[in-house]
Amino acid sequence: MATKEEPTSNPVNPGKPVDDPSKDIVPETAVVTKVTQKKIGHRRVDASTGQTTYKKTPSSALSGSIQLAISHTVAGLSSKPERDVLMQDFQVVETIVFPSEGSNLTPAHHFGEFTFRTYAPTAFRYFRDLFGIRPDDYMLSISRLPLRELSNPGASGSLFFVTHDDEFIIKTVQHKEAEFLQKLLPGYYMNLVQNPRTLLPKFYGLYNVQSGGKNIRMVVMNNLLPSVIKMHLKYDLKGSTYKRKASKHERAKKNPTYKDLDLLQDIPDGLTLEPDIHNALMKTMQRDCLVLQSFKIMDYSLLLAIHNLDEMEKEMAAKNKHAQNFKKGYRAAQSVMDSTMLRTKYSKDLDHWSGGIPAKNGKGERLLVFCGVIDILQCYKWKKKMEHTWKSMIADGDSVSVHRPSFYCERFQKFMGDHVFKKSVVKSQPKRQRDLLPNESPRPS
Amino acid sequence: MATKEEPTSNPVNPGKPVDDPSKDIVPETAVVTKVTQKKIGHRRVDASTGQTTYKKTPSSALSGSIQLAISHTVAGLSSKPERDVLMQDFQVVETIVFPSEGSNLTPAHHFGEFTFRTYAPTAFRYFRDLFGIRPDDYMLSISRLPLRELSNPGASGSLFFVTHDDEFIIKTVQHKEAEFLQKLLPGYYMNLVQNPRTLLPKFYGLYNVQSGGKNIRMVVMNNLLPSVIKMHLKYDLKGSTYKRKASKHERAKKNPTYKDLDLLQDIPDGLTLEPDIHNALMKTMQRDCLVLQSFKIMDYSLLLAIHNLDEMEKEMAAKNKHAQNFKKGYRAAQSVMDSTMLRTKYSKDLDHWSGGIPAKNGKGERLLVFCGVIDILQCYKWKKKMEHTWKSMIADGDSVSVHRPSFYCERFQKFMGDHVFKKSVVKSQPKRQRDLLPNESPRPS
Repeated sequence: MATKEEPTSNPVNPGKPVDDPSKDIVPETAVVTKVTQKKIGHRRVDASTGQTTYKKTPSSALSGSIQLAISHTVAGLSSKPERDVLMQDFQVVETIVFPSEGSNLTPAHHFGEFTFRTYAPTAFRYFRDLFGIRPDDYMLSISRLPLRELSNPGASGSLFFVTHDDEFIIKTVQHKEAEFLQKLLPGYYMNLVQNPRTLLPKFYGLYNVQSGGKNIRMVVMNNLLPSVIKMHLKYDLKGSTYKRKASKHERAKKNPTYKDLDLLQDIPDGLTLEPDIHNALMKTMQRDCLVLQSFKIMDYSLLLAIHNLDEMEKEMAAKNKHAQNFKKGYRAAQSVMDSTMLRTKYSKDLDHWSGGIPAKNGKGERLLVFCGVIDILQCYKWKKKMEHTWKSMIADGDSVSVHRPSFYCERFQKFMGDHVFKKSVVKSQPKRQRDLLPNESPRPS
Repeated sequence: MATKEEPTSNPVNPGKPVDDPSKDIVPETAVVTKVTQKKIGHRRVDASTGQTTYKKTPSSALSGSIQLAISHTVAGLSSKPERDVLMQDFQVVETIVFPSEGSNLTPAHHFGEFTFRTYAPTAFRYFRDLFGIRPDDYMLSISRLPLRELSNPGASGSLFFVTHDDEFIIKTVQHKEAEFLQKLLPGYYMNLVQNPRTLLPKFYGLYNVQSGGKNIRMVVMNNLLPSVIKMHLKYDLKGSTYKRKASKHERAKKNPTYKDLDLLQDIPDGLTLEPDIHNALMKTMQRDCLVLQSFKIMDYSLLLAIHNLDEMEKEMAAKNKHAQNFKKGYRAAQSVMDSTMLRTKYSKDLDHWSGGIPAKNGKGERLLVFCGVIDILQCYKWKKKMEHTWKSMIADGDSVSVHRPSFYCERFQKFMGDHVFKKSVVKSQPKRQRDLLPNESPRPS
């Protein structure tokens, strides 16, 4: 039972074991047959060995070559002097060939000869710098120990890897997605600069491994959900109510990812935030959505995970208080909570939400909320073609999730403001007046 | 003699009276005949009336319509809520028709019906905001009192206007220049954000007045040279030595603009700056030049003007000490000097050089240096065609001013570092050691 109590961490689905791929490779959408479970997009799983491949490349070879190539190119880049990013940098692609036997530039390896392309190296270096990630840390996180492959990667057909220290997620992206990210970079840069608290994905690099005539493109991103913190609830929210309910299959999982309709039912009072935090969060979201809208991006989600501090305490009381696992988890959550609380005192300097946002639920329980906007690389124009646009528009008018970008953007924000994030009542009334108020529950001191 | 002692200010050529256009409209290049003095590019001067026209539009009508239209559009824009700049904003052009009789949107006027276009209004609003210019101040500066037309506008064929308060310069630009500035805007934005001390022109707006089938495009910029401060020397430096000497005609002026060869002769020791200031200035210039090079821009100049504080004191002593004019000028310079000195204490926060840079010349005299990079809108590709490329390349090999952008960029920086701005010797030696140094001139306490 030890694995159930303390599962190998899984950033997309924390608490879910990652050591049984054949069992877990199931798309998050409901209607899938046994056959498609083994092949989704370019991702396949060999039923007998459990080995995952992407475009027929074994995931182990892919992760090994990425580790080698990223650390090699980051080291090379860090020897170049820092300079400002120029418009032209967004279009640059650097190519290095890695022959198996090695060259005077590259080490020998056993992944088979491959060509490695780094997109916009100077721009991504600048982004990593803005995000406070030093070249050495980036290299070490990615290459010091093997990457862990996520066993529950969703319906996109992408492979997901997470670095040993839980810091970064590496995800395969399609040709069109990579192309779109390149086009997005100048606008992405502008948003980072103007809106540093942005909830958009933190992109740290875009790469392409080419071998045997196949191109496998990958993006390195932040890991939204620290695996050390237990997430009691997890949602993928689009602001739509059309079929936005987790499948039976999903609900049967240990840590399911719920959807919009589930949230309306489970958390009818929403999550209550302090007024300053609420304002900052809604403003940030508004700015993010404006950028997405301006690039005609839709169908993105808010990934929202909730750690319940009071629940955690109860769990601790119910279980053996001396269990090492719980103590560790609780201490980690407490220290995140403390530093978050500290940071909210300096809300002007609070330029990201990665430490979790303090909130309360309807029962007054203390929560830490982790959230970010995900799946932004699927541009409206070509995404539209892939989805059952006409069908769903006929079925449910305006509440379908594929609609014009400004509508999507507004509905997304409205849902988050109306149903998810609520502003707590201001406490700044004069004391005497407050004493006269009826129905005021005693405040814990 | 009063006008000579206290001339109406002229920001391009301070101290030069502006009230005699027929006398002053002379291009700064040497070889010009009497005929071209009256028509340079689209600019003409009627010999009998002294009236300037641009594309046959009288300058008075042009300046009047700009004032009306800019203040109208800025007021309109400031009613819209502030928001982040998006990539798409750089391409936006807003059009308003101003009929003479007025409309329900625009006031009546007597400049003849015209159409006014504002380029990238949201982006320029963001730039003005970055530069610390509030909408009301911008409007008032431009429209509260008539614009002054500069009588010594140079050989470009542009009209120059300066606002009554000396804050802004409005300059006509050619179609290609306006088009190029539009293309430059994203890169310009990136430079502003990354390199806030930039010496590049501060662009506050790009507009087009269309009337009678003619398009007159104008850019609003910062005025580099505060007219309240007397500039004792003024240079236009390109880092080239090929024919870079002020003409006899130019030298005969009261406040000539000298060139590279003149500087090498007049200020052989260059201008000495404190090490911190020197480092910051050279680094800023390097970053600016990299941006210009990346856009294949060349043939830009460093406009450099020197106010000599010690000279000013001597001038005061020589003249009547109680003369109001000198007192005023001295006080202004002193107050600029003081605030500049103050600001250098906080060099991290010193994000522009508009208050003048403290320096010394070879004689140890205290100076205030005003400088900025000008003429950046002439892109290499089409500029090349207009210049005598072949001729000058044959004549003087690498030292011609029209050459490939990276060469131009490097030569420019090298000249400024080798001949113009010198680093003063660090004073941080231990006191005892300093006392032993020979030839040390006594320091004023």
